[in-house]
Amino acid sequence: MPKIVDHEARRRHIADALLRIASREGLDAVSLREVAAEAGVSMGMVQHYFATKDQMLMFAMIQLNARIGERVATAMDAPSPRAFLRAAILELLPLDDERRSEARIGLAFLARSVVADEPADLLRQALPYVIGFYAEQIRAAQELGQVRADLDAGIEAVILYTMAQGLVNPALIGHLSPEEVVATVDYHLDRLFLTSG
Amino acid sequence: MPKIVDHEARRRHIADALLRIASREGLDAVSLREVAAEAGVSMGMVQHYFATKDQMLMFAMIQLNARIGERVATAMDAPSPRAFLRAAILELLPLDDERRSEARIGLAFLARSVVADEPADLLRQALPYVIGFYAEQIRAAQELGQVRADLDAGIEAVILYTMAQGLVNPALIGHLSPEEVVATVDYHLDRLFLTSG
Repeated sequence: MPKIVDHEARRRHIADALLRIASREGLDAVSLREVAAEAGVSMGMVQHYFATKDQMLMFAMIQLNARIGERVATAMDAPSPRAFLRAAILELLPLDDERRSEARIGLAFLARSVVADEPADLLRQALPYVIGFYAEQIRAAQELGQVRADLDAGIEAVILYTMAQGLVNPALIGHLSPEEVVATVDYHLDRLFLTSG
Repeated sequence: MPKIVDHEARRRHIADALLRIASREGLDAVSLREVAAEAGVSMGMVQHYFATKDQMLMFAMIQLNARIGERVATAMDAPSPRAFLRAAILELLPLDDERRSEARIGLAFLARSVVADEPADLLRQALPYVIGFYAEQIRAAQELGQVRADLDAGIEAVILYTMAQGLVNPALIGHLSPEEVVATVDYHLDRLFLTSG
């Protein structure tokens, strides 16, 4: 009987190895040899599933974003657009070990995307989705009278997204404590929303 | 007569080579061999001046920050704290080829700093200076009645800094045009300042 191989599981297993290395030592340390050793498979097996380091990285980023997306989805029954938006933003920030690891990899991916075409393409596809989701929550709040109608939901969404991304590095290197990160987000949401809950 | 060697100029020459490679292909591509080839010197010469890649990177980042600092200083005679702050922020953003190149390297350095101790130390020293400078301008504006007295200058400075850093990637990958980047900064400054000039 032929052996049944779950190719998707193998790809995920290899991508997880890449994520662990990137989180620990940065993308610099990610090589065919390192990934194979970390995953406990042969270099040939890694090459069988991924033609290039960027392809492996992109597969890993899609996995990682799906994980974050699942966590955000659990906040969908939040009592207000503000609470939902806050939960979604905090899921991206390095406030515990899991999110610290994700944020380190995310930052490496952002840096890679400004010198490599395929990661840039992936981000150009993902950004309108994330920023659009923020804008949607702000518009919903405007309709409920919870955000001033004269604010530009699209630009406010860009500011929220960029502020969150910009908080990642100062939080990871310890310039800001997790409490200061959360206080900064809440300070800004206080300005944006007419309601506190 | 012994040959006079300008060691500082040689270090700068080598660091410039690193900056060119990092801007073009990312930090991944920076190796002893690549830097030596780009600088047109021997690998031994590179090693003579820099013991590690991170030391070379840090020297290069200090050079690059000094260059940005000099440009910001030329805006010192701006007509208001708002104008000075705006000029300082826009110097960090990828609005032309020079700043695009700097921003790519800056992003690579941010990513490196979350997995390597020495770059993290350098950033922990630099951040209070940059964010403190922003806070100073906001406090000066508060004293002039140009920013509401009840705003927290320290947190506003963090938000300005993080927003600016977060704008770098979307601008570099073309999700935001230079005009949209400037409009986002101005939109936020409009909210912060009671004066438009």
